[in-house]
Amino acid sequence: MLNRLAIHTYTNKPWNLAECVEHYARKGIGGISIWRETLAGCDLKAARQHLTDAQLKPVSLVRGGFFTGLTVEARDKAIDNNLAALRECEALGIDKLVLVCGATVGQTPQTNRAQIAEGITRIAPAARDAGVKLLIEPLHPVYAGDRSAICSLRDANDLCAELALPHVGIAFDVYHVWHEMDLETQIQRCAAGGWLDAYHICDFKPDQDHLLLDRGLMGEGCIPLQQIETWIAATGFTGPREVEIFSRKWWAEDQHRYLDTIVSTYQSHYS
Amino acid sequence: MLNRLAIHTYTNKPWNLAECVEHYARKGIGGISIWRETLAGCDLKAARQHLTDAQLKPVSLVRGGFFTGLTVEARDKAIDNNLAALRECEALGIDKLVLVCGATVGQTPQTNRAQIAEGITRIAPAARDAGVKLLIEPLHPVYAGDRSAICSLRDANDLCAELALPHVGIAFDVYHVWHEMDLETQIQRCAAGGWLDAYHICDFKPDQDHLLLDRGLMGEGCIPLQQIETWIAATGFTGPREVEIFSRKWWAEDQHRYLDTIVSTYQSHYS
Repeated sequence: MLNRLAIHTYTNKPWNLAECVEHYARKGIGGISIWRETLAGCDLKAARQHLTDAQLKPVSLVRGGFFTGLTVEARDKAIDNNLAALRECEALGIDKLVLVCGATVGQTPQTNRAQIAEGITRIAPAARDAGVKLLIEPLHPVYAGDRSAICSLRDANDLCAELALPHVGIAFDVYHVWHEMDLETQIQRCAAGGWLDAYHICDFKPDQDHLLLDRGLMGEGCIPLQQIETWIAATGFTGPREVEIFSRKWWAEDQHRYLDTIVSTYQSHYS
Repeated sequence: MLNRLAIHTYTNKPWNLAECVEHYARKGIGGISIWRETLAGCDLKAARQHLTDAQLKPVSLVRGGFFTGLTVEARDKAIDNNLAALRECEALGIDKLVLVCGATVGQTPQTNRAQIAEGITRIAPAARDAGVKLLIEPLHPVYAGDRSAICSLRDANDLCAELALPHVGIAFDVYHVWHEMDLETQIQRCAAGGWLDAYHICDFKPDQDHLLLDRGLMGEGCIPLQQIETWIAATGFTGPREVEIFSRKWWAEDQHRYLDTIVSTYQSHYS
């Protein structure tokens, strides 16, 4: 059963959007999360029709955010960019936008966080009007310098609690938070708050050769995937399990064979 | 004033112990933390005499730990190795041993943590007898898979509180914990518990090209060093600031010029 399997287009970076839609659908995969990089240059109306025809559920648009910046101009530009992403969500019929919240070298984590809170608050009305939920994705602390100051599930929960906006939730990705000693508690808290809106899977290779582009397929690393799945399932979560892997190694392979491997690996990990 | 500056021998990896001692002392640097890799093959008695003659304070021996393992045999071997490190501390007149606690691929963070707690408990009596304090060093979560399951200052504080052993404390390294949103609170807690026993400085480069060997000199990265120094100073900490940098880039440079750069960079950051 692959109805709970979804794939991020960036996982198959060599494919364009039409290829992703076609090949995922033919395999019986249930959903797709669309990267804006993959979407660039596509006709949105045609893309939406293709998704409908293929009966492939568009799960999330990836990604907005990057709210931090040294100047007001930079931060205003980020708002414009997020509003554009929300319009793309509307055009495609997607009701979730994943946020990589941002971090700027030269600013403290606290300053970054304040700018993130302000940015989300500024785009929240437009998200509500578009019927799109904004998903804060806590990122691994290795990216805390220049990608996201929100770098633990605890931080993401704290921010959701502080913002208290009905259209703001969390994208949970095992890669970023697997190591946290209080993970079970924070997952429970995330679900109880109504924020557990996405579940991304992959693996973390301790010997990775690149900070961004050497993620592992499930089983290639050290994440206790089964334990985390048990915790997620215990909350009652029944949404898609989204495979999101950036890997130069896998991108260099034949993408059809790679997709077969993703599917079989998924099946061996999740029943 | 360089009396509060100490340097880890691995920072100048191309130098042997005698060279480190000689060159640090000539600069008026106050202390040295000795890596066991640098110590390998040295006569301990002669090394101790050299430190005394040079009037260089040996701050810590680096490093014990690595308590986790899939088998009892592996974990027993780690104990033996730590006991050997304690004997080296005694021989050199060093009263602190830094612990990188360990993590084993295939074990959950919780299992790793239990084995770490057990390992520290097992060597604690020998540490007490040797007059050596065991310093848990929380490592950056990027090393949580294979180096340390203790990967936040909160985790280290929790473990110290749980163990409640007078000869167990914490080695605080800005590289590993700078991103934590509750860092000020955890520093206060660490000091209040009597666990703030070492203070390591360097910088975190967001664009680092190697997970282990591309640390930055102060100012080369994104750590808010001044903010953290303020928090550390506010606890009343007056111990050494230890420069610990692993960098293929800096190791390829002339080590005398590099040492000059360390000193001038230190002076520009810390008055």
